[in-house]
Amino acid sequence: MALIDYIRANIDDKFQETDLPFPVSDKSFAKNDIISDYSIVEKMVYFLESGIVQISLPHQNGEIRILDFFFSNSFFCSYSSLLKQQPSDVQLTAITDCKVKTIHYADLKKAYESSILANKIGRLEAEKFYLKRVKREKDFLTKSAEERYKDIMSENPEFINQISVNKIARYLGIHPESLSRIRKQQIF
Amino acid sequence: MALIDYIRANIDDKFQETDLPFPVSDKSFAKNDIISDYSIVEKMVYFLESGIVQISLPHQNGEIRILDFFFSNSFFCSYSSLLKQQPSDVQLTAITDCKVKTIHYADLKKAYESSILANKIGRLEAEKFYLKRVKREKDFLTKSAEERYKDIMSENPEFINQISVNKIARYLGIHPESLSRIRKQQIF
Repeated sequence: MALIDYIRANIDDKFQETDLPFPVSDKSFAKNDIISDYSIVEKMVYFLESGIVQISLPHQNGEIRILDFFFSNSFFCSYSSLLKQQPSDVQLTAITDCKVKTIHYADLKKAYESSILANKIGRLEAEKFYLKRVKREKDFLTKSAEERYKDIMSENPEFINQISVNKIARYLGIHPESLSRIRKQQIF
Repeated sequence: MALIDYIRANIDDKFQETDLPFPVSDKSFAKNDIISDYSIVEKMVYFLESGIVQISLPHQNGEIRILDFFFSNSFFCSYSSLLKQQPSDVQLTAITDCKVKTIHYADLKKAYESSILANKIGRLEAEKFYLKRVKREKDFLTKSAEERYKDIMSENPEFINQISVNKIARYLGIHPESLSRIRKQQIF
C-alpha cells in the first residue's frame, strides 16, 4: 500500500498499517473523470497511488488554465476549499486512470484532536503546498516559458509521455504552437 | 503573555504556560530594525506580541516591494527560507517598535518529533500562510488597487494610522500619488 510506504519514508519509519489514525477507502477514477468540481465544498483528502491529476481554473473565453499536476505518491484535494470549507474555484480531473485512497476531512479533523501522526501529516503537507505555491509564483515572475518547460521536464520525466502537448501548454500559459517550437529547439 | 493566550484561543483552551513544548525568549526590536535579512538562512520563528512587521522583496531600480504586513498576535519568519533552510529572498523589518517571543527552529523541529501541540501549531500556521498567499495572488489578479486598499482598511483598521502612505503604496504596487488620489475619493 503506497500510503503506508509514503508515511514510513516521510514521517515514521516504524509505522504500521494498523496505526493509521483515520479510516481510508479505495477508489478508482477513469481518465477524464472529474474528481472534485468547481463550486463544491471539498470534503475529501486524496492520496494518489497511481496516475496523474490536473488542477485547473476557468480562464478567458471558456478556456481553462492548468495550475498544477499531481503525480503518484502525493496527497491532493481542492486545498483552499477544504481548509476554508467554502466553494472551490478549481477543478480536479483525472488525466489518466487513477487509483486513490480517500480520507474524509471530518475523520481527519477528528484525528487532529489527539493523533500526533495526523498532525505531522497535516503539517508536512501544508508546508509542501505552501512551498509549491511560492515556487510557482516566483517561477512565473522570473522564468520564461522555455525555462519552466525545461524544469517540468527534468523534475517529472514521465510528464512528456503521459500528458498532452495541449495540457502542458495550458500549464505554461502559452499557445500549443509556441510549445511545439520550444520542443523542436531543444535536444533531449 | 500573548503567546499563551493565542494558543488557548486557537489550539487548546486548557493550555498552561508550563506545557510549552519548546523554549521561548523575549526580544525587542526598535522601529526600522531589520529582524531577518536578505540572504540569511532563517533559524528563528517569531511570535509578534506587539508592533507591526513588514516583509519585503527587492524590486526594480533599488526600490522594494512590500509583500505583507504582520500585526500583533501572529507568528512570522522568513518562512520559505526556514522550511528549506536556504538563503532568504525576503527581508523582515520592524516598522514600529516590536516585542516578540523567539523560538529556535532547531528546538521547534525537536518538539515536532514528540509533541502534538508543536505539530498542531506548525500545521495551523502552515495552513494560514498558505491561505494568505493564495488570497494575495488571487487579489492581485482580480481586484483593483482601490479594492485592495479598501480590503486592508477594513481588515486592519490600525493600518492607516501606523503605516506610512509610502509603505501602503509599495504594498499595493502603485505610486504613492495614486494612493493619495484613491484616499481622497473615499469617504471613511
